[in-house]
Order: sequence, then structure tokens, then C-alpha cells
Amino acid sequence: MRGALKANGADAILVSNIKNVRYLSGFTGSSAYILVSRDKSWFLTDGRYTTQAKDEVSGSRVKIYKKALEAVAESVSALKVRTLGFEGADLSYDNFLKLKKALPKTALRPLSGAVARLRARKEPFEVSLIRESVKALDRGYRTAMETLAAGVREKDAALLIERSFRESGGDSTAFDTIIASGPRGALPHGKASDKKIRKGELVVVDMGVLRNGYNSDETRTYCIGKATAEQKKVYSTVLAAQELAIEKIRPGAKASDVDAAARGHIERAGYGRYFDHGLGHGVGLDVHEGPSLSPLSADVLEEGMVVTVEPGIYIPDWGGVRIEDMVRVTRGGYEVLTKTARDFVCL
Amino acid sequence: MRGALKANGADAILVSNIKNVRYLSGFTGSSAYILVSRDKSWFLTDGRYTTQAKDEVSGSRVKIYKKALEAVAESVSALKVRTLGFEGADLSYDNFLKLKKALPKTALRPLSGAVARLRARKEPFEVSLIRESVKALDRGYRTAMETLAAGVREKDAALLIERSFRESGGDSTAFDTIIASGPRGALPHGKASDKKIRKGELVVVDMGVLRNGYNSDETRTYCIGKATAEQKKVYSTVLAAQELAIEKIRPGAKASDVDAAARGHIERAGYGRYFDHGLGHGVGLDVHEGPSLSPLSADVLEEGMVVTVEPGIYIPDWGGVRIEDMVRVTRGGYEVLTKTARDFVCL
Repeated sequence: MRGALKANGADAILVSNIKNVRYLSGFTGSSAYILVSRDKSWFLTDGRYTTQAKDEVSGSRVKIYKKALEAVAESVSALKVRTLGFEGADLSYDNFLKLKKALPKTALRPLSGAVARLRARKEPFEVSLIRESVKALDRGYRTAMETLAAGVREKDAALLIERSFRESGGDSTAFDTIIASGPRGALPHGKASDKKIRKGELVVVDMGVLRNGYNSDETRTYCIGKATAEQKKVYSTVLAAQELAIEKIRPGAKASDVDAAARGHIERAGYGRYFDHGLGHGVGLDVHEGPSLSPLSADVLEEGMVVTVEPGIYIPDWGGVRIEDMVRVTRGGYEVLTKTARDFVCL
Repeated sequence: MRGALKANGADAILVSNIKNVRYLSGFTGSSAYILVSRDKSWFLTDGRYTTQAKDEVSGSRVKIYKKALEAVAESVSALKVRTLGFEGADLSYDNFLKLKKALPKTALRPLSGAVARLRARKEPFEVSLIRESVKALDRGYRTAMETLAAGVREKDAALLIERSFRESGGDSTAFDTIIASGPRGALPHGKASDKKIRKGELVVVDMGVLRNGYNSDETRTYCIGKATAEQKKVYSTVLAAQELAIEKIRPGAKASDVDAAARGHIERAGYGRYFDHGLGHGVGLDVHEGPSLSPLSADVLEEGMVVTVEPGIYIPDWGGVRIEDMVRVTRGGYEVLTKTARDFVCL
């Protein structure tokens, strides 16, 4: 935080993004701010969290507010802050205006992702928590393979799978479970629906677990019955694209080059127009966070980052294939954190 | 929307809040914008949602973007908008700056909750969807009464209860299930933990279901074993406070008066300092939306609003009691939507 302060030329920084607040303080509630100056740190939250803040927050003076931004402005005034850095990607325009009106003598300067950059490189304790989240999720995929079959409703399968990863320690889903069978697989974000799975279809299963605040994210695609030649071809194209991309992962690699390794392979196989999203994203306290693996990304991989690698091919009215794993950037290259096998399985 | 446009003096409005986008278009994805001018409506989303947008969105021209704000700015320019209303409570400061730079000739004017005001009054089809969500939730409370007992871990109980409301049609929890036993009940937002429930404790159970996009929210407090005189007194104080508040609900009532009815009763009973949050909030596409029932609220109740009424008493190191129901404002007064009995039950 002190580094971020210095780089920004601000006397103090207001952290409003609740995941950033958690990262810096350990607070697990849903509403709080941190105000950090060169020598003081104030933690501000509302009356619901009086007891919880005392239990969880260390290193900051805890203040309880009735109206958040009024309390923030009072604290900024008390600290005689001339230039206040704030999280421009998080603070709404309305809240910015409120602060500006309440602090006529303070210059407000948007920060560009100072805490997000810290969060992208995971500390060892964070990697341990992510491993636990992944473990529960991999258990869910074992249940998926036992559950998915012709005649089963997507939603019923989701319920059984989620139960199994909850029983394996997951606190909740990281996002709405995607089970997209047959033509629905062409929706990259097709939540489990009332549709029944049918023989001959592909089923895209994209799930995540939230455990102790840390997310996991993984996708497998199964076939039901016997795969056609085209299903096999699309699957092997996506799998090879993913492997080429994973091989590129090491500290110093450009995120756009990792994306290009997968995208180039899919394009050469003739499916380029059917891969219309980025290759991956960081995962941690947020299920989508930095860095971004995409053609337009300027990010460079660093040791300790944890990213998804998830190429896909989505053919309207036919269906889709996506394979997604979580990969940690290690000093020498990479480690694949998700352990579910990646071969093409027919159920 | 046309009304909101007129009131705002803008040529067009940009809707960026994703729940507002859903409300106006029917789109259930996670990333999209709507741009409405006096005679045109454009729906903008990314490539993941090409198929889904075609299926779900009606009344707007669908545009697919690579970079959201660049596409929005291009559309605003194409429509020759001089004054653009935007959702100041939703758009981040950084995104506001991006729009401002890309649209040097367009005045940007923050809207104050135009769509939120429309959403606060529920349409009949929305009330039906809320009833279905509540029905699954009430089923969860029947399971809660069968499950909660001395020796049961809060998290294990949460899993069983959530399973039952999922099997009754709920898509997911509306928020992390709160099961706070004994002293943890003094945390108004104490998520289910590894703590085991013990004989003699109170257990606060605050849960919500999300079904077809609509939320429900309800709280009951149980005793385990035999209640003490003080537990009974606190419970009956909260229950009477809730009933006094519910009796005040009718079109035209001030939200702050409804809050005051409950708060005054708790204060007169000597527990005023232990009720440190607002009395309630609207529920719909968001589990927390307008109106706000609190001492500082300027909202006035209108027919069709659906609000929670949830007084509580939280005594540090002792525990807590909260009772929460969902109430619809009817032409003649109110209807309590949640059907779980409110008497003090010992399990």
C-alpha cells in the first residue's frame, strides 16, 4: 500500500472495492472502506459489522458509520489530506461527486488498479486457499461424470454436482453453474436449464467453487453416447490449442502471446470465427480478476499469478466445446492446479 | 423509459446497471448496455451473448461489441446525442471518464434512479415470480425446523436447507445463508460457520432464494432446548416491533414512519442501542433495492412495492433475535408474502 501511495503522488488512498478491502484487512463483510495515509490506517464500516470488524481487522483503527461517504469525508478532512487517491474503477460517479462536494479542498485522483496489481500475484497462503477451492471443484467433476447422462435435466445435474462440492468443503458456487447440452453449448454462458440432456449431444460443464473467500474455475466438455467425427475433431482442436497456450506460460511471457498460441491453432484448424472471447483471466478473491489473457491485453505474466486457460469453439445450432484449467505461474514455468483429466470422455 | 428521458432533459439514456438492463429488455446475461433515444433503442453486448441476445431481447437493435465503452460511444455519436443521461450510481468514475473523452461534444448528465423507481413498483408478473421464490424459501424454513438442533454444525444445516429450497424450484441462494447461533447471533450478518449449535442458544436464520431472476428474503430466530426469560422477552419485543411496523404499511405511508413504529417499540423496551440497522428494503431483481425503510429514508410507499420488515436486537456476547418478512403494499394496505409462522419455536 505504501508503494502504491508513493507512485500515485497522493497523501492518502481510499480503498472502496470490497475485495480489495478484504485483501488488505482480512475483513469478510460486505460493506467497508479503508483510508490509508502515510502513517495512519482507518477502517470504516457500518453498525452491522461492529463485532465482526473487531474480530477480523488488524492494523487499522475501526470507525463505525451511519452514512459511509460522509464518514469517509470527515476522516479525510481530519487527516488534512491534500491529494486523495481513489479507486476509479470501483467508485461510482455519484459517489465521486459526493466526495468532491464534501471535500472542496482535496484533489481527488483516480488510481489505476494499484491493489489489483498486488492481488494478481498470489501469496503462498492464497495459493493454499485456492488449492483447497480447486480440490472441492475437482470432486464436483467426479460427480459430474457419475451424473450426466441422456434423460437427465441440466438443472438436476447441477444440484447434485453442487451438493458434492459443498460436501467437499466448498462454501458456495463461485458463479451460476453452466451446464449447456447440445445446441445450448453454443452459448458460452448457458446456465443449467430445464432442458434434458440427449444422446449424441456434447455437454459443456463450467463450474466454480468459492471456499474461504477464494474462487476456482474449471470447464470440461463431455459427449453423451458415442462421439461423431466432427465432435472428436472440435474437441481435439480445443485441447491442442489449450496445451499450446499452457506451454507458453512462464514469468515474462506476454499474456497476448499466450492467447495467440491457442487462437492461432484454432484459426489454422478453420474454426477461428467460432472462438469469440479471451483465452483466460486471473482467479482469486474475484473469479474474474487480473491479469487478462486476450489479444488486446498488455499484461505480462509474473511468478505467483493464477490464471485460467479456456479456449472454446462455439458453433451456432450445433453446440460447443470449452476446456478450462487453472494454471499457476511458477519461477520456472507453470503448474496446472486443476487435476481433472482432460481426455474426451463419453458418458 | 420515455418518461425518464423527458424528465431528465436528455436526448438519450445509457442504461449500464445489468439488472436495469434485464428489467427493460428481458436479457439474463451478465454484461450489456441499452441506449435509448426518443425513437431508437440499441442493445449492446459482447460476443459470448450473440445467440442469447437474439433469443431474449425484443424491441431493440442488437449490436455485438469487442470493447463496451467504445461501442457505446460510437452509437451515441451515430445518434447525434447532445445530452446523454447515464446511471451515475452504477457507472464507475473510470468509465465515466472514458465516455467523456470519447464524446467531447456530448454533455453527460447523471440520472438519479429513474429505472430504480420504475423497478420499486412491481408489475403483476413480477409479483408472481416473487411469490414462487418465496414459496421455495418457505419450504427451506420447514427444513430448517427439522434440521436445526444441538450438536449440528451451522454449515451442515445450511447445506441441507439450501438443498431443500433448490429442490423446491429455487435456482440458487439470493445471498450467503446466515445461520448464527449463540453469541454469533450478535453479528447481524453471521454467515453459517463451522460452529456447532448448542443447547440453550438462539439461532438466527436469514436466507434468500433466487428463482427466475427474482429474490426472496426472510429471517427466523429459533431457540434450542428451553428458552430463558430474557430470550423470550427479547423475542416478543422484536415480534411486537415488527407487527407495529407492518400495520403501518399502506400506499402513502412514509418509509421513515414505518421504521419509527418498530424502532420506537424497541427503544421503549430498553433495547434501542441494540437495533443498529434500517428496518427494511425493497426486494426484486436485486435482493436489496428501493425503497429503503430507515430513519433517514425520504421514500414514500406506493402500491406494488415489495419490502422487507426486519427489526432485530443484537446484544454483544449474548446473541441476537431478528424476524424478517416480505410485505407487498396493496391498494388497501398490505399483504405479508412470506408464510412461515412467526411464533417463538424451540427446537
